[in-house]
Amino acid sequence: MDEAAFIAALRTLPLHPGAQDLQDDCALLEVGGETLVLTHDAIAEGVHYRPGTDPADIAWKLVAVNLSDLAAKGAEPLGVLIGAALTDQSECFVEGLREILLRYQVPLLGGDTIRPQGPPVFGCTAIGRATVTPVPARTGARVGDALYVAGRIGAAMLGFNAGDGAAYLRPQPMLSEGRALAPHVHAMMDVSDGLLLDASRMAAASGCTASIKLNAVPFPAGMSTDDWAAAVRWGDDYALLFTAPADAVLPVPAVRIGTMLAAGEHPLLLDGAAPEGSLGYQHS
Amino acid sequence: MDEAAFIAALRTLPLHPGAQDLQDDCALLEVGGETLVLTHDAIAEGVHYRPGTDPADIAWKLVAVNLSDLAAKGAEPLGVLIGAALTDQSECFVEGLREILLRYQVPLLGGDTIRPQGPPVFGCTAIGRATVTPVPARTGARVGDALYVAGRIGAAMLGFNAGDGAAYLRPQPMLSEGRALAPHVHAMMDVSDGLLLDASRMAAASGCTASIKLNAVPFPAGMSTDDWAAAVRWGDDYALLFTAPADAVLPVPAVRIGTMLAAGEHPLLLDGAAPEGSLGYQHS
Repeated sequence: MDEAAFIAALRTLPLHPGAQDLQDDCALLEVGGETLVLTHDAIAEGVHYRPGTDPADIAWKLVAVNLSDLAAKGAEPLGVLIGAALTDQSECFVEGLREILLRYQVPLLGGDTIRPQGPPVFGCTAIGRATVTPVPARTGARVGDALYVAGRIGAAMLGFNAGDGAAYLRPQPMLSEGRALAPHVHAMMDVSDGLLLDASRMAAASGCTASIKLNAVPFPAGMSTDDWAAAVRWGDDYALLFTAPADAVLPVPAVRIGTMLAAGEHPLLLDGAAPEGSLGYQHS
Repeated sequence: MDEAAFIAALRTLPLHPGAQDLQDDCALLEVGGETLVLTHDAIAEGVHYRPGTDPADIAWKLVAVNLSDLAAKGAEPLGVLIGAALTDQSECFVEGLREILLRYQVPLLGGDTIRPQGPPVFGCTAIGRATVTPVPARTGARVGDALYVAGRIGAAMLGFNAGDGAAYLRPQPMLSEGRALAPHVHAMMDVSDGLLLDASRMAAASGCTASIKLNAVPFPAGMSTDDWAAAVRWGDDYALLFTAPADAVLPVPAVRIGTMLAAGEHPLLLDGAAPEGSLGYQHS
């Protein structure tokens, strides 16, 4: 069973209305007049990071990918729960946690500790408070919207390939940018699995086609044009992908990479044609 | 680094006030005049269940152990987030999820899916709404309180040893009992790691000594007295352990197993003496 079939099966379960039919990275929970934003992401050795990775980097990435989901909803983090695998280097893991919790001023709420028998798996649940309603969703894009990226696409790939893990292991969740953008966007998500894959998901969820111009994508300075095709299929950048009216005045720097069109044969067009091959990372 | 040292290190991080200094299974979050109760527990193959276990049982246990934490806080479940490992039998996992979500009327809020490279690890975050404040904590036991168990101690061990996994793999979280008890108790927790270990934790957190009479413990019918010493050190029963005034009129059946005494040399006395050997299950 692959990831898409599994999620389809989960959709047959009793779902909370805030689960948004499992179409989004986050769930919404209305409590006492507030809207909470909840997300859970796990990372596993050999899947999300290489064996031998500094546990401080693992801790940073674990929390960062969850905070990035909150960022894309314009949410203010309230706290995190950590599901930690005990290892011989758990001191380093705690120090990485300390770094990111202090950096983003997010307190630890609790969690659980296990000593697994195989490669470690770590989980994190992040809880935030929505700052705007409706909370930006994947499903909100409208035909005619401009499609934007805040942040860069491909820095994680460059870092990974160069053996410099900073961009790959220490993503910077765009919390302040997400909060600033939230009142202005129709749809928003973070780019975790690849720009093309995530844009196609947003388009499909919104009943549109995303039309992207490759040479408009904000690649890091100095990236060879030979790397563009791979970079738009590589995840881990945690940029923000969003749509807004073409004439919107945006409060933070963002680059227009395309337009949302009426739904067509494909949810995604790259320079006018359906892209070839894989669009990004999917658990097979 | 063992589990206790790891938790001690986590206590040096920026903690949310609702983390309760990581002394409890649950965290508390005040939102819009309501108090949410949050818990995260993971289960791993080879640690919490044997390889070859029916994935439907894994799903049941995963959710049940988290709902049991909510039960011990008297909380009403609002939803769960699931961190699932994809396997070749994920259909069965979804069916087990369906069974327990329907049984306890808990909706799925969301989650994450990975395909780990080693033995699977599953995580669950359960979110509940407190029904009484203050929410029953581990720390609330008072000298002179009676110590009670609602439920049975040892059924999971019997089932495991007999090769009948129902009690071990399909624990029944005592949600309605926990809600009924919450207004009456001074301290409450579920028995997940062994009665003696969990009672000693409650006593230490409350600054008391728990004095337990072995022959007062509610063992399953037909358990040999030879098994008593092991049963009180075996986890997975998910009974409720709580203290209340000795003259409290309790709304659900519960058995008095002892008394909370002033803190002494040991946090736990069994038939008047510090028990020998391990008190229960700890990740080493």
